[in-house]
Amino acid sequence: MASPSRLSPLPVPMELHVNNREKLIDSFHHHLSHSSRPLHGFVFLQGGEEQTRHDTDHLELFRQESNFAYLFGVVEPGFYGALDIASGKSILFAPRLPADYAVWLGEIKPLVHFKEKYKVDMAYYTDEIVQVLQDEFQGSSKPLLFLFHGLNTDSNNFSKPAEFEGIDKFETDLTTLHPILTECRVLKSDLELSVIQFANDISSEAHVEVMRKVRVGMKEYQLESIFLHHTYMYGGCRHCSYTCICATGGNSAVLHYGHAAAPNDRTLNDGDMALLDMGAEYHFYGSDITCSYPVNGKFSSDQSLIYNAVLDSHDAVISTMKPGVTWIDMHKLAERIVLQSLLRGGILVGNVDDMMAERLGAVFMPHGLGHFLGLDTHDPGGYLKGMERPKEPGLKSLRTVRELQEGMVITVEPGCYFIDALLVPAMENSNTARFFNREAVIRFKDFGGVRIESDLYVTANGCRNLTNVPRKIPEIEAVMAGGSWP
Amino acid sequence: MASPSRLSPLPVPMELHVNNREKLIDSFHHHLSHSSRPLHGFVFLQGGEEQTRHDTDHLELFRQESNFAYLFGVVEPGFYGALDIASGKSILFAPRLPADYAVWLGEIKPLVHFKEKYKVDMAYYTDEIVQVLQDEFQGSSKPLLFLFHGLNTDSNNFSKPAEFEGIDKFETDLTTLHPILTECRVLKSDLELSVIQFANDISSEAHVEVMRKVRVGMKEYQLESIFLHHTYMYGGCRHCSYTCICATGGNSAVLHYGHAAAPNDRTLNDGDMALLDMGAEYHFYGSDITCSYPVNGKFSSDQSLIYNAVLDSHDAVISTMKPGVTWIDMHKLAERIVLQSLLRGGILVGNVDDMMAERLGAVFMPHGLGHFLGLDTHDPGGYLKGMERPKEPGLKSLRTVRELQEGMVITVEPGCYFIDALLVPAMENSNTARFFNREAVIRFKDFGGVRIESDLYVTANGCRNLTNVPRKIPEIEAVMAGGSWP
Repeated sequence: MASPSRLSPLPVPMELHVNNREKLIDSFHHHLSHSSRPLHGFVFLQGGEEQTRHDTDHLELFRQESNFAYLFGVVEPGFYGALDIASGKSILFAPRLPADYAVWLGEIKPLVHFKEKYKVDMAYYTDEIVQVLQDEFQGSSKPLLFLFHGLNTDSNNFSKPAEFEGIDKFETDLTTLHPILTECRVLKSDLELSVIQFANDISSEAHVEVMRKVRVGMKEYQLESIFLHHTYMYGGCRHCSYTCICATGGNSAVLHYGHAAAPNDRTLNDGDMALLDMGAEYHFYGSDITCSYPVNGKFSSDQSLIYNAVLDSHDAVISTMKPGVTWIDMHKLAERIVLQSLLRGGILVGNVDDMMAERLGAVFMPHGLGHFLGLDTHDPGGYLKGMERPKEPGLKSLRTVRELQEGMVITVEPGCYFIDALLVPAMENSNTARFFNREAVIRFKDFGGVRIESDLYVTANGCRNLTNVPRKIPEIEAVMAGGSWP
Repeated sequence: MASPSRLSPLPVPMELHVNNREKLIDSFHHHLSHSSRPLHGFVFLQGGEEQTRHDTDHLELFRQESNFAYLFGVVEPGFYGALDIASGKSILFAPRLPADYAVWLGEIKPLVHFKEKYKVDMAYYTDEIVQVLQDEFQGSSKPLLFLFHGLNTDSNNFSKPAEFEGIDKFETDLTTLHPILTECRVLKSDLELSVIQFANDISSEAHVEVMRKVRVGMKEYQLESIFLHHTYMYGGCRHCSYTCICATGGNSAVLHYGHAAAPNDRTLNDGDMALLDMGAEYHFYGSDITCSYPVNGKFSSDQSLIYNAVLDSHDAVISTMKPGVTWIDMHKLAERIVLQSLLRGGILVGNVDDMMAERLGAVFMPHGLGHFLGLDTHDPGGYLKGMERPKEPGLKSLRTVRELQEGMVITVEPGCYFIDALLVPAMENSNTARFFNREAVIRFKDFGGVRIESDLYVTANGCRNLTNVPRKIPEIEAVMAGGSWP
């Protein structure tokens, strides 16, 4: 039997992380010189630790903290890492493992193993941090550590700076590193891009596999299982970028469906739309892809109307994106195209400019158009210092308001949803009631929604779509009927 | 095409948790009466919360805290629960969700939904805890809350007692609940058993599926992927009981292989043994099954020797188990059978009683024979208050030293491993060196190990094996060659 995949796991050279470190050091030098500060001290990060569930010894599968992964690529828990700002030298600190680790958890690797595996200049144990950094430091005062501390604008959480016994023997700087490292992560290198491309390739292929296997009567979670299996079996992807959203029927109007309280457990009915938002992670880097289609494989005219409204929006944004364009403008463009389609389809009435002035787009697409993608699904850096989050409906959900720059990877994910909690108030509101053709809206009461999401790389003159799944209605119907792709 | 499964997800009646609550209240009444304490106050537990990864908004898929799951069966995060000791009445406290939950995460369910879904007597919001408990309480002093706090003897972690704003308005008891609730969990009800049986059924079937598909040249994680897919696709098992251990070749001597630092990423070679320790979780209850076999489908004579040593040990324990038998004796029986086989096979020389006196069994099987299984893979209650953990090699790894009782579910998982970190010292030790046939041991240097693990339910007169996979060598070879099972 032919393999269901054309792909095999991508070898990833550790130079990816060597380059990331060099980029950070360059940025640091630039920043320190610019503010007339001495080029000394250490960038110092703490890697993630394994977590147990509550009081038990149930270990959650460890996945490295993203900033530590960016700089060092270390898959093991319990590490620390330092970069000497003066010399650019990199140092990893590995946990000293107890002798019985060899019996229970595997070979105890010598330090040289980590030095070579992660291509760092030096490797020591974590109980040597104080001594090593003091010995390396070429100054007379307390050595200075630049720790990672700052706000994640997606979660509103602050990162926890590194902690270790003896940190009181150092000066610490909690403000300089965060914006510099975050900005390094925003613009992807070619090696980073190749990994994100692979995560997209295997996830695109898995979406196609699901498209071919979906049938009325299945459970939503079976689509999740097919996706997870394909990306792990053929792509070696042990982690997903996020919990799969496998929403059908009315569930497709729940933007972040699929979590424990809404666990992809509905049975697929004839006539349902499916909205499948699923992306695998490979070597820490993610993908984020949404496909929407009818579970029975044939679009009805109402399904075509909403689907094409979103597809036109998706395509219009992609053909407009290039460096210098602001993301707020792209979001508004996406909204405008959807509103125009709903107007043409007889669901809305009136003038699109008036609708835009009343922010009617946010009733049908309450989420932002897209977000940076990288080591995190919602990759950081969407708001530079001083940038304010918009207050208006829809726009306030934007995870970035920046101008596009070459090297950014950003999702384009317009949607159109029929959400009672938003539609009912909008149809009662005296400013927006006039836009609705009530009879038509009622027809879509149980429709749910459509989202189409691709991952885009911003190039010098435009952008490149990293996602490759059937998008046009005839393409989707052909693949669902057994046709080949690509 | 015929479905690869004979199974479909088991409907689980919520009476399972109603019964669990009644059992706890009965035990509580018994305990309080016995110690002449008044039958009043509340058992009060805090359910688990969703966790984000580090500073990001990446949500880990939520799985309920096990004690809360035992009593209430609640799948959603952020709940509290109380049992009124006087009346036995049950109260759930649900989080009050913000209005935009309906847009992002799904329908906001009314309290009556949770009251009916979880068959509790009352449902309120978490911000009403203080008022509700004070109103319910029929005494004049501060109401008394029995909180869950105590040592988990598997992890050596203490459980965190419930916390909420206003807890200072209550008396709290931190010692009474833990041993009572833990002991309730040790003896399984028929409904609990049926769920554990289903988790075993689907996991057994998935093991057989892996057995059929394993081929030289595959990656270890592909076996994991096949297992996970089968249990989710056909059993609806979204969680595993623990991270899959898919160890081949030398890795099969690493007892807890498969974690992030040893991530099932080796390529299967001709001649390798595979040790696959994988179990799905269903409706919070787990399974824990290990199969060992050669990846090429045919046992060599050395592989047969070690495999049959372990199988004889596994079978001897199971045929001896019954209420009143102590687990230490079962562990020693398992060791003895393995040592006898190694002696017969020419790997050891000398007298088995002498070997037992020197604890030679622990060189080949450093882990305990088995552990309780239920809502946690290492289910609590293995050491009753006052019971001491043995100090001797092997025995000190036992997760329980109790006498078997009807209603316990316990794993039987003897193993035989060739672990350099243990063999080399034992062959150098003047007390044990004489037992080894060095030439024979060298032959097994890269063998790895064998583990055979089934889940047993202790009955009135013996025990019942919940696991159903091929165990005899001809059975395994037949299934690997495409034969049917069961």
